[in-house]
Amino acid sequence: MTPGDAAVLARAGVVLPPAQPPVGTFVAVVETGGLLHVSGQAPLDPAGIPLRGRVGDEVDTGEARARARRTGLALLAAVASEPGRLSRVTRVVRLLGMVNAVSDFTEISEVLDGCSELFTGIFPGGHARTDVGLPALPSNITVEIEAVFAIAPKASDPQ
Amino acid sequence: MTPGDAAVLARAGVVLPPAQPPVGTFVAVVETGGLLHVSGQAPLDPAGIPLRGRVGDEVDTGEARARARRTGLALLAAVASEPGRLSRVTRVVRLLGMVNAVSDFTEISEVLDGCSELFTGIFPGGHARTDVGLPALPSNITVEIEAVFAIAPKASDPQ
Amino acid sequence: MTPGDAAVLARAGVVLPPAQPPVGTFVAVVETGGLLHVSGQAPLDPAGIPLRGRVGDEVDTGEARARARRTGLALLAAVASEPGRLSRVTRVVRLLGMVNAVSDFTEISEVLDGCSELFTGIFPGGHARTDVGLPALPSNITVEIEAVFAIAPKASDPQ
Repeated sequence: MTPGDAAVLARAGVVLPPAQPPVGTFVAVVETGGLLHVSGQAPLDPAGIPLRGRVGDEVDTGEARARARRTGLALLAAVASEPGRLSRVTRVVRLLGMVNAVSDFTEISEVLDGCSELFTGIFPGGHARTDVGLPALPSNITVEIEAVFAIAPKASDPQ
Repeated sequence: MTPGDAAVLARAGVVLPPAQPPVGTFVAVVETGGLLHVSGQAPLDPAGIPLRGRVGDEVDTGEARARARRTGLALLAAVASEPGRLSRVTRVVRLLGMVNAVSDFTEISEVLDGCSELFTGIFPGGHARTDVGLPALPSNITVEIEAVFAIAPKASDPQ
Repeated sequence: MTPGDAAVLARAGVVLPPAQPPVGTFVAVVETGGLLHVSGQAPLDPAGIPLRGRVGDEVDTGEARARARRTGLALLAAVASEPGRLSRVTRVVRLLGMVNAVSDFTEISEVLDGCSELFTGIFPGGHARTDVGLPALPSNITVEIEAVFAIAPKASDPQ
């Protein structure tokens, strides 16, 4: 992580978990055309272990919201896995937020606000978000969030 | 709404519901790189109240299809909430259509055609669409649709 | 299909199914701003018939993985439906992978690797991917995958 990357995190007082290798034959981050596409991430405990369980029976709304924030940290860790990349992010464009929930659970947006609040504390300008509840997420993780960030070109890129 | 925005709607004879503030800590529309990303919207009755209930038990296919059209109107209302923005839209790029449905409901595409037909009546060129059924949507809304539009720069933007 | 398109497929030794018309009032592929947005596609048998059934009861993980690969072929068939387009693809940017699964099924990523392995064998650079399990897909198809590809301009386009 570069000093610029660390400064982004220090502004919000956040500490990142270790970036996770994707579970499968894909990569965590693709940069193209001024956008970063980040694969859906899971909430991680401080040791980097995914947090599992369904909301509405095994996990309550408050804990799920904390896990959505942790998922936001995992998204940032994926971005920061290439030195200098986090400090090039200019905006969060769009989140797809998915909550592993029983079918009558309706506080999905409250859960996902845990991630949005993290991001609005770090990045200017607001972001679009789409919220859904799902009965099955990979490996039974509690929350999965996919993100698109706007990113400035590298200082070395042709303008 | 500018006269240009109103002309877009008049061509299709549609009346928009009031734009909804997002339920959560995010914004409804983000413009970046020639695209508008619009957060997932719900169907609204004329007073702006979200229409709730699951398809396949509480709501039938015909009513769900009408609600998908209403969701399209809510997407346009979000775009139109900034004066002049609707008239800059050049194309619908992609919809993610989600239907709150019982697990054996398979007429998901028929439901979402309610939105696509609205949009093909207003915008040229067709759009991509991905359709899914979900057992839980935020606040038990019947349909949720996320959209990406292509948009021309503001007349005042540097070219 | 142009010789350039055929060469892309020959490199990976793949044969495409017939491109499917979208089921609904939308188009399969939208090109805008250097990206191809391809509507969610279904797995097809060699005759072009969609493969149906839920993973975890009617379909096992191995068969579902083979169907995810077939879904990747259907995505390529959609791209290739315009001659010369497949050979302009420079990268897979992002997949949204959806598996029609019982709610306690957790091998979702293993299933979707069937598509990712196909794509990493054809295109350089890796891709982002978001994986979800769903209790209902249109017409009860087993897998649905939406894709965004990066694409070079046509030789005749203004640079």
